[in-house]
Amino acid sequence: MDFICTKCGKRTPTTTLQPACSCGGLFELDFTPPKWSESLVDKNEWSQFRYRRFMALEGEAWRDVTMGEGRTPIIRLDDDVMLKMDYMMPTLSFKDRGAATLVAHMKSIGVKTCVQDSSGNAGNAVAAYAARAGIRCEIFVPEGTSPSKIRMIESHGAKVNVVPGTRDHCADVCRTKVREEGAYYANHVYNPFFYEGMKAYIYETFEELGRIPANIVIPVGNGTLFIGAVKALEHLEASGAIDKFPRIIALQSENCDPLFKAVEAHAGVPAHVDPKPTMAEGIAIGVPMRGKELLEMTYRHDIAFVRAPEEKILEARAKIAARGVYCEHTTAANYAAYLAFCEKNGPTPDTLITMCGAGIKSDH
Amino acid sequence: MDFICTKCGKRTPTTTLQPACSCGGLFELDFTPPKWSESLVDKNEWSQFRYRRFMALEGEAWRDVTMGEGRTPIIRLDDDVMLKMDYMMPTLSFKDRGAATLVAHMKSIGVKTCVQDSSGNAGNAVAAYAARAGIRCEIFVPEGTSPSKIRMIESHGAKVNVVPGTRDHCADVCRTKVREEGAYYANHVYNPFFYEGMKAYIYETFEELGRIPANIVIPVGNGTLFIGAVKALEHLEASGAIDKFPRIIALQSENCDPLFKAVEAHAGVPAHVDPKPTMAEGIAIGVPMRGKELLEMTYRHDIAFVRAPEEKILEARAKIAARGVYCEHTTAANYAAYLAFCEKNGPTPDTLITMCGAGIKSDH
Repeated sequence: MDFICTKCGKRTPTTTLQPACSCGGLFELDFTPPKWSESLVDKNEWSQFRYRRFMALEGEAWRDVTMGEGRTPIIRLDDDVMLKMDYMMPTLSFKDRGAATLVAHMKSIGVKTCVQDSSGNAGNAVAAYAARAGIRCEIFVPEGTSPSKIRMIESHGAKVNVVPGTRDHCADVCRTKVREEGAYYANHVYNPFFYEGMKAYIYETFEELGRIPANIVIPVGNGTLFIGAVKALEHLEASGAIDKFPRIIALQSENCDPLFKAVEAHAGVPAHVDPKPTMAEGIAIGVPMRGKELLEMTYRHDIAFVRAPEEKILEARAKIAARGVYCEHTTAANYAAYLAFCEKNGPTPDTLITMCGAGIKSDH
Repeated sequence: MDFICTKCGKRTPTTTLQPACSCGGLFELDFTPPKWSESLVDKNEWSQFRYRRFMALEGEAWRDVTMGEGRTPIIRLDDDVMLKMDYMMPTLSFKDRGAATLVAHMKSIGVKTCVQDSSGNAGNAVAAYAARAGIRCEIFVPEGTSPSKIRMIESHGAKVNVVPGTRDHCADVCRTKVREEGAYYANHVYNPFFYEGMKAYIYETFEELGRIPANIVIPVGNGTLFIGAVKALEHLEASGAIDKFPRIIALQSENCDPLFKAVEAHAGVPAHVDPKPTMAEGIAIGVPMRGKELLEMTYRHDIAFVRAPEEKILEARAKIAARGVYCEHTTAANYAAYLAFCEKNGPTPDTLITMCGAGIKSDH
């Protein structure tokens, strides 16, 4: 199987140890899944790998890597809103979906050591799965990352480097190490295998409900869930499994909104923004590396962008907790943004919102 | 449906608001599930209520209460040991199983307010499910309970009372309130509906593996999982679904071991112990209220009791984390006890161990 460069179009085998094309462009996968059919779902597999035939996975390495991630249930918040309980995961966040497929790929091509930068959840997930696969791992986190997140990463034997400065600077430092020392970049933005795992979010929804809800709320920082969800929905649509693409309500923090601003201006690249601190730290990405791709998808599917009002995040969290679900601040931002969307556009029934991180993770 | 008193045998309808028989004896359920058959499993239900036909549940109240708990996957730790990932739950612990069924029952009989005592996880679970069901809730926790556990309970709108003294004293204070103020006792030890949920642990294992492992390691404080598991295994055996009762390896903390000591002496009631502090706080129950029942089950099935060596708990936790799974101290005690069992009895392959609490919960 090959990667294709999103910039110059050059092909590179997926067995490469390079993080990107020699021209600097990011990779995408040259992979078209078989037509969706329930008969291709492995119903005996109690993880998201029940949908592996629709993922660009080669070999059986996933069997040694999976920790049963995925298959998360959908429950009611109220008459209009359903919650997909995506923090019911091995490391308590939805990033396990991507980490599991990425590390399965890494194991299949013989990677021995890897590095990753992350504000927390993705680093936690990669560290856990790398440990499981017997791959050495080093994680770069920005200063301010909570001690409990760092402790979790270290528990898996990964080395943690705390980098002073912003989240974006932290990524730069990590990428320098990739470039200069040739470390494998187990990164959720660069490596397309990460997205292959995120696709399961949609496949599960379709399997459980037997349909796709009219509205799907998706948080966007680097856009890992966004890309995975759009790809899976396009796949279901192309397969004739659904006859209408749902409305995606994509959200950013109002304190860090390069894609929201771009869509407002109908621009093809993310806007320059000056990120301010936000409770929704999981989506506080000032420079989304795949911004052009995200915006192309946005215009292709008429995706609505909305901002989570900062001062409504804790209130949204409390409302969800009053219904039994305790979620991360970033996760509460999803609901805050949905409520802001409803305020502007009226009642929005049949909506699915992801509960992507466990509440205790932001309590430090 | 009726409760039967375990002491005097008197029947009381399950619609009662009393916590126990008028004689003071604890209730058990007069319920015999239908013969196990896969065709009675509701495969479209993405929660443990897919097995509801084997639970003593009346009505449909569970539909408004469930948060998708259960259906947790089983993964490999090594050639000998499988882990059931039972912290992948709404409140990050296996107590959600019991809380979901208990609160479903409470809702079905019209309970408006409830109280519960708990060292943390059970209180957290009951608070969350009570919130979901719209039932007012007050939780009594012993002093020393971590601030983050208290915060989680309070997030669901429950009132938290921190009681000075031991875990057992905390339960006494709560029971006084039940007796004197007539509050509904949403307790995992008293209320048999809690056990009905714990049974799903075994049903899921049987559904996923298509068999029951030779050895099942079960932590025992008050014995909620123990009772649920034994009942479900007896049910599978009586149904002819399994032809052999597995070996249950039950464990206690070496610093709080009333049942271990009783079994050693082949006694019919728990031994008097003087509990010392332990990392395995989730099973540090000096006076297990259903001790007689637990011991009867123990002798009936030749269950092995073993103690978790206190000084090996952190080491066991690190070993599990090195395989990608970050669990609570009490959960790590399960593995520490298993290793101690192997040291004494030799290699013990085909063993299932529960990962019953998420690691971050004990990091405070």
